[in-house]
Amino acid sequence: MRTLKLVVAYDGTAYHGFQRQQGLATIQGVLEQVLAKLCGEQVTLAGSGRTDAGVHACRQTISLVTAGTIPCANILRACASMLPPDIRLLSAEEAPASFHARFSAKWKRYLYRIVENACDSPFEARYAWQLRGRLDLAVLQQAAACLPGTHDFTAFRSSGSVQGTPVKTIYEARWQRREGDLLFTIAGNGFLYHMVRNLVWAMVQAGLGERAPRSLAEELATGRRLLWQQPAPPQGLYLQEVFYADYPATAAQQDNV
Amino acid sequence: MRTLKLVVAYDGTAYHGFQRQQGLATIQGVLEQVLAKLCGEQVTLAGSGRTDAGVHACRQTISLVTAGTIPCANILRACASMLPPDIRLLSAEEAPASFHARFSAKWKRYLYRIVENACDSPFEARYAWQLRGRLDLAVLQQAAACLPGTHDFTAFRSSGSVQGTPVKTIYEARWQRREGDLLFTIAGNGFLYHMVRNLVWAMVQAGLGERAPRSLAEELATGRRLLWQQPAPPQGLYLQEVFYADYPATAAQQDNV
Repeated sequence: MRTLKLVVAYDGTAYHGFQRQQGLATIQGVLEQVLAKLCGEQVTLAGSGRTDAGVHACRQTISLVTAGTIPCANILRACASMLPPDIRLLSAEEAPASFHARFSAKWKRYLYRIVENACDSPFEARYAWQLRGRLDLAVLQQAAACLPGTHDFTAFRSSGSVQGTPVKTIYEARWQRREGDLLFTIAGNGFLYHMVRNLVWAMVQAGLGERAPRSLAEELATGRRLLWQQPAPPQGLYLQEVFYADYPATAAQQDNV
Repeated sequence: MRTLKLVVAYDGTAYHGFQRQQGLATIQGVLEQVLAKLCGEQVTLAGSGRTDAGVHACRQTISLVTAGTIPCANILRACASMLPPDIRLLSAEEAPASFHARFSAKWKRYLYRIVENACDSPFEARYAWQLRGRLDLAVLQQAAACLPGTHDFTAFRSSGSVQGTPVKTIYEARWQRREGDLLFTIAGNGFLYHMVRNLVWAMVQAGLGERAPRSLAEELATGRRLLWQQPAPPQGLYLQEVFYADYPATAAQQDNV
């Protein structure tokens, strides 16, 4: 048996999320179908984590155990034509038997993209949260300042999730403007259901002057929602990268967006 | 009766081109359906020109004659929610009775976008021609240098088109690199069927070293195809803007991309 590590990019717009669901188009479903043909047997993929419907991935990591003997280079070449244009296999390599895309992951980085448009662009509809108002970058940064560190993120978890500890460590959380886009980057050792989108929504409310930037810190401290909250739209969210080594002390200094 | 001038942007990926076709999703079909509701009567739109399946528009101009009394501001507001996210109404205004989006147009500008990627990106699949090789910008510019001026473009017209004169005047034709994109801009008083995409394909072949850059000038001069040709993929092409005043002598100096 071989263990393979695959890295894929996808536009999540047309899919009901990453995770396989009977009768629905999902990223995992499409990948398993193609890889089963290439491996000559049924395969079950493990993703580093799920992404919701409409959420994208720049580099999602997947592991796979198979008796199939097809070389990695052939998998890569075959997937280029067998996968649809909105799912792309970026790399395929042999991995140690102990490697598991989800359990071996040490940290992840997400990107959330906002475009401030006078009116919606048809070319951004799938790839950003298009907002009418102009957000105050300084207030966004102020609201995000409380996030790095180890906190109980219960206040920013959507209901219906059945996960382990709500205590997560955030290594980076910052906003920047680039070419008219507002980009939020967050890196951490784990994320609760809808956590990034709930945080973005709350910070955007602060950036629009609808809530105090310090209210996020209060919600983090109390572990309770003090203000109404909903997840920011999925199309602005990108799983940027999954890391399998510990977070390096110097990484926060780099501009990795 | 009122004459209205509308400007729309669209992502052409999901549509069988601009022009209405029975039983198929088209830009004109969707717009006519929504505008009929708003005007309280059946309407027939005139576009400045057709765009093919998969081709986009940043600012396509449309005219419309109606007895409907709905104010332009209300059309704009209603269309924001009634149109799908991939078709956006940018402006709506009263126009003189003599105005016709197609017959009144003096010139148009198209943009063609190429992305040079090591492997295809799922986020560019709808919006660019993704090429593996690196194109030689100097050769592209050399190939494009013969285009400005008045020429018979028969060699770059796709068969099956039934149009008027193949003699068109090109005001601008230039390539530039911007943030990793290769952009080709062409402005002229008219374009034959597939003309921009055929020209782009021929220039890209020159840029890849597959044909001599001067071969375009020869084909223009003889009016005959000397080399095999096919249209560049539709997803890289954008109708950028339609102009209703004569081409200004100074416009070529500006960077309008």
